[in-house]
Amino acid sequence: MKKGIQSYIFETPAYIREAAAIVGKRESEGALSEYFTEVLDDDLFGEKTFELAESKMQRHTLKRVLEKTDMKREDMNLIISGDLQNEIFASNFAAREFHAPYFGIYGACSTFGEGLILSAMLINTKMLSNIIVTASSHFSAAERQYRYPLELGNQRTPLSQWTVTASGSVMVTADTVENAPKITAATIGKVIDYGVTDANDMGAAMAPAAADTLCAHFSETGRTPDYYDEIITGDLGIFGLEMCEYLCEKQGYKLPKNVNDCGKMIFTEKQKVFMGGSGAGCSAAVFSTYFLTKMRKNEIKKLLLVPTGALLNKGSPLQKQTVPGLAHAVSFEV
Amino acid sequence: MKKGIQSYIFETPAYIREAAAIVGKRESEGALSEYFTEVLDDDLFGEKTFELAESKMQRHTLKRVLEKTDMKREDMNLIISGDLQNEIFASNFAAREFHAPYFGIYGACSTFGEGLILSAMLINTKMLSNIIVTASSHFSAAERQYRYPLELGNQRTPLSQWTVTASGSVMVTADTVENAPKITAATIGKVIDYGVTDANDMGAAMAPAAADTLCAHFSETGRTPDYYDEIITGDLGIFGLEMCEYLCEKQGYKLPKNVNDCGKMIFTEKQKVFMGGSGAGCSAAVFSTYFLTKMRKNEIKKLLLVPTGALLNKGSPLQKQTVPGLAHAVSFEV
Repeated sequence: MKKGIQSYIFETPAYIREAAAIVGKRESEGALSEYFTEVLDDDLFGEKTFELAESKMQRHTLKRVLEKTDMKREDMNLIISGDLQNEIFASNFAAREFHAPYFGIYGACSTFGEGLILSAMLINTKMLSNIIVTASSHFSAAERQYRYPLELGNQRTPLSQWTVTASGSVMVTADTVENAPKITAATIGKVIDYGVTDANDMGAAMAPAAADTLCAHFSETGRTPDYYDEIITGDLGIFGLEMCEYLCEKQGYKLPKNVNDCGKMIFTEKQKVFMGGSGAGCSAAVFSTYFLTKMRKNEIKKLLLVPTGALLNKGSPLQKQTVPGLAHAVSFEV
Repeated sequence: MKKGIQSYIFETPAYIREAAAIVGKRESEGALSEYFTEVLDDDLFGEKTFELAESKMQRHTLKRVLEKTDMKREDMNLIISGDLQNEIFASNFAAREFHAPYFGIYGACSTFGEGLILSAMLINTKMLSNIIVTASSHFSAAERQYRYPLELGNQRTPLSQWTVTASGSVMVTADTVENAPKITAATIGKVIDYGVTDANDMGAAMAPAAADTLCAHFSETGRTPDYYDEIITGDLGIFGLEMCEYLCEKQGYKLPKNVNDCGKMIFTEKQKVFMGGSGAGCSAAVFSTYFLTKMRKNEIKKLLLVPTGALLNKGSPLQKQTVPGLAHAVSFEV
């Protein structure tokens, strides 16, 4: 059922049947270490380049999900995936190995949200039953693509975030799955631009989009922030999350005290990542491990996940362009 | 209704309510000149960079579609768009101006096909009524991003294609529209890799994917090639289309003599573009003008459009990677 301009309540909820994640070494040493059971030995994962390593990480989580669900490749109705590499190289090359119908998507670090909403909507056509959604990012691939080669040893700015090396895959399914979270509602984000020009301060670029989507979700669905046990943004980081809370409050929605952010959750303060983690793989991996576990155990019953993306490429700040943001809200219940 | 692994017959057909296209000067001097009523004066379209010009082209066609349908921005349930720029810059920055729910997609030059199929499926959820699908490409932006800056004056190889400067937007709608083509079926493509390593011979890279999707469409839907008045691939170009015909025939599907390709159709031989046009805007602009006109006039009643994409980025051939292809088939009837 459509609610307002951006929101939907799903008559047929889509279940998260299974999920898998793999993360880099630094991520495995962070605050969620006990949830990250699959970890890269090194950034290259046995490949010759970081870009190929990221693609292999996607293949790995796709395969794991198939193994866990005991499904064959032909049982997958669709793979939807995206990443941060130019022309979503990691996703395209991972999909090649699975001989399944494939749609590539791009929403920067909001990609996982777009994939989840699309999959839930496609399940509602009653034509598709099993869709795998994957999102990934790789620190070393992202650094040299968006910023500078690692070899330069550039200093990081205080408001910067650390691109997470991670891939997360979930199997979204039409069948009822016991004790599994189901997608019950969603709000599709708009591209929001507050004129931020510092490409290293992505939290500030994304916070207005996150706040816009959150407020639309509350006003259109009629749910209040306290409807949810947890409201979790994608990768706003420490300062971005604060800014998002401020913007929501200005619009009359005070977010609960336990509001959090995957980018803020994934690392510890000791790891010197400044504002926290970022990257399309961040919310995908944190959801696929930590939140899925918590929801299966009934420790979280209602979760609003809001993956957030900063829309830029290497050239756009050089062309004096601002960094707009995009955020999608996905409501899970168990 | 799902048919086989990749194909769908839509119970609720999605109508093409309106469309708009804008093309570059060279495209306007080609074989379809009479259909291209909106033409850029110069490649920059009043902007400072080619990348920004492409984004403005998307804004232009999006606006035109809204004008033609007499709709307001808030009547659009969703914008789905993609292009060839890194991180689909043109699409993200165009969507920013419309304050509408937005999903970015990437399938190289198959992007328009992905958008059409997604929109038809989302119409089938009965939750969305009006979706705008946009795809664009810009010769000068693509050359310097994928190959070399134009200033270098590099020679083109004989099997190369010319990236079309064009943006095409269509409004896909749930309402019945008289004399308008409707999307009745679709086949989602798989990533197919025949090991082509020449990044300048994209026809060869995409032909196996086009053939794979075409054969899947015929075998899964039970339709034969002669079911359609026209079978049109996206941008295989002259040699790629020949190769696709050969591959289909080997699998038992002889394509009709009038099979054609948007990339082959858009230019004339005199324009020295070697194998023809390419780019995500190619099939989008040719469909939005030529085919829409022909179908509205009932001169074509059944069209199978198969946008085709070559999956590479600037770095992937440098990392010794092959160029896989992807193609989606969309069946229009009037």
